[in-house]
Amino acid sequence: MGQVVKVALDAMGGDNAPVEIVKGAVDALAESEDLVVYLVGKEKIIKEELGKYQYDDRRILIVPADEVIETAEPPVMAIRKKKESSIVKALYLVKNGTCDAFVSAGSSGAILVGGQLIVGRIKGIDRAPLAPVIPTASGCSLLIDCGANVDAKPNNLVQFAKMGSIYCEHVLNIEKPRVAIVNIGAEEEKGNLLVKETFPLLKACDDINFIGSIEAREIPNGYADVIVCEAFVGNVILKLYEGTASVLVQKIKEGLKSNFKSKIGAALALPTLKDTLKSFSTKEHGGAPLLGLNGLVVKTHGSSESVEIKNSLLQCRTFKEQDINGKIRQQLMIGND
Amino acid sequence: MGQVVKVALDAMGGDNAPVEIVKGAVDALAESEDLVVYLVGKEKIIKEELGKYQYDDRRILIVPADEVIETAEPPVMAIRKKKESSIVKALYLVKNGTCDAFVSAGSSGAILVGGQLIVGRIKGIDRAPLAPVIPTASGCSLLIDCGANVDAKPNNLVQFAKMGSIYCEHVLNIEKPRVAIVNIGAEEEKGNLLVKETFPLLKACDDINFIGSIEAREIPNGYADVIVCEAFVGNVILKLYEGTASVLVQKIKEGLKSNFKSKIGAALALPTLKDTLKSFSTKEHGGAPLLGLNGLVVKTHGSSESVEIKNSLLQCRTFKEQDINGKIRQQLMIGND
Repeated sequence: MGQVVKVALDAMGGDNAPVEIVKGAVDALAESEDLVVYLVGKEKIIKEELGKYQYDDRRILIVPADEVIETAEPPVMAIRKKKESSIVKALYLVKNGTCDAFVSAGSSGAILVGGQLIVGRIKGIDRAPLAPVIPTASGCSLLIDCGANVDAKPNNLVQFAKMGSIYCEHVLNIEKPRVAIVNIGAEEEKGNLLVKETFPLLKACDDINFIGSIEAREIPNGYADVIVCEAFVGNVILKLYEGTASVLVQKIKEGLKSNFKSKIGAALALPTLKDTLKSFSTKEHGGAPLLGLNGLVVKTHGSSESVEIKNSLLQCRTFKEQDINGKIRQQLMIGND
Repeated sequence: MGQVVKVALDAMGGDNAPVEIVKGAVDALAESEDLVVYLVGKEKIIKEELGKYQYDDRRILIVPADEVIETAEPPVMAIRKKKESSIVKALYLVKNGTCDAFVSAGSSGAILVGGQLIVGRIKGIDRAPLAPVIPTASGCSLLIDCGANVDAKPNNLVQFAKMGSIYCEHVLNIEKPRVAIVNIGAEEEKGNLLVKETFPLLKACDDINFIGSIEAREIPNGYADVIVCEAFVGNVILKLYEGTASVLVQKIKEGLKSNFKSKIGAALALPTLKDTLKSFSTKEHGGAPLLGLNGLVVKTHGSSESVEIKNSLLQCRTFKEQDINGKIRQQLMIGND
């Protein structure tokens, strides 16, 4: 048995809470004996769910929290007012050192704001980027930043590139990850003001494998491992990626049902088709880490099922085992906080 | 027979020039007796291609141009130096009033720069946006701006919204087109500085049907008809849209070939599958207009085949018939140049 990793898990967050969340926790414990999960939320409901399973009860703890932050609530206000919410209580477990990490499928805004306000950034890190893993033709890439802090500055993007590279190498196991900046052309002189100012700074970094610009067309091909961009652009990329895939798949399904011959064809091809689509689902790769905090905060999809919760908990284990925050401090040459 | 519409067509531009370009011109003439096409490029080659077809030779003219601007050339320099290129000569045909419009599958950069430098903007229009039509689940939308002028200002975006709305209504035949601004959340207070400043200006316009923000996830659903954004974001959206669809389709095809059962299924379902994918191809909707110029400039895909060229030529006819530039001048309340 290795180092124990303690994760606070928001039992109330997301469309499938608490059923899929609790199942994800139980499944993760079965896969990793180093893991301890703090289920944060309404005690009675959590107990009922846990009653369905057999599990090592020394490694699942319940932390009662009676309030829930809804997705539609303005995040800053919600974090300030709902002190008894599962998100706020869980974040304090990380803040005070009881837990190493926090995983939630709840309100993105509250998680992003709460992560920065309560857990706090590593000293010297100016912004904490949200870095989801997206599927590509050849595997997956880390898209950094997709968070709520828009209008970043060039030095923010340089920090994103470095943190993303460390995470990609040690958590996603990609050696010498190729780092690229999202641009509207391959040439160095292309781009908006932000990209033009950031490009030479990234080029000058000798601690990352910077390969230059990436056009959005090349993102699905897996042309880069770490895709650096400002949060507005990152958010557009992430959501369009999900939207396009989902509409296209829907259209294909409708089309295949439109006549007898194609219906038979579809029935024969369906299992393979499903496998293909699954490999292209953004849900297969666990949650998105909010990097640069004094601890780890992971945001999973609102529609998370148990497998995504399980993968996110295992991801927290790797994050601690690989001492990602230690590596961030060291590589960005910033002191301990 | 209606009003005659004269279009300068770059016979040398794009991957399939001159074969598909010349074929597109001949096909367009057969569909519209109002159309006159000026084929601009190397005379001998154009004549050889034209020799393959029967057509009304009073309505196809050849304008010799011995130089070609390559895709990789820096646009500003190319436009200045290559006075004998098909792009520059064709743009002057529009500038001096010989032609109403220019269509090219050649260098995007040269077309965008040349359109503004040679043809020139309508007085009072500060930027000429490139507005491709993208396929959606329910039809198509106009994405404005996808051009080369990044870092737009709020008043530029307001002009884009108005011009896009006029084009959408009168060329794409969408009544009271729904205009939305690309944003990272549905609420008015969300967004980056540019979007926050632009939102109230659009809301105050009583001559467009502004429906608020659109998240990138909703773009493929066809939630808006005119999608307004700054060019860097627009470029990312357009290219990611094309890239995601193409990779997903490739993956599906590979998957279907992977075992015997799905191979049989795929053979049966293929015609229907192809129809579906065709309806989602960005090539089915003709070229992208560069709006706000003293004339019309249309950029088609570099990989354009004859059908896209033909559709783009017919689009130029509608543009003139509907007096789009007159409507732009009138609605934006700017005088004649």
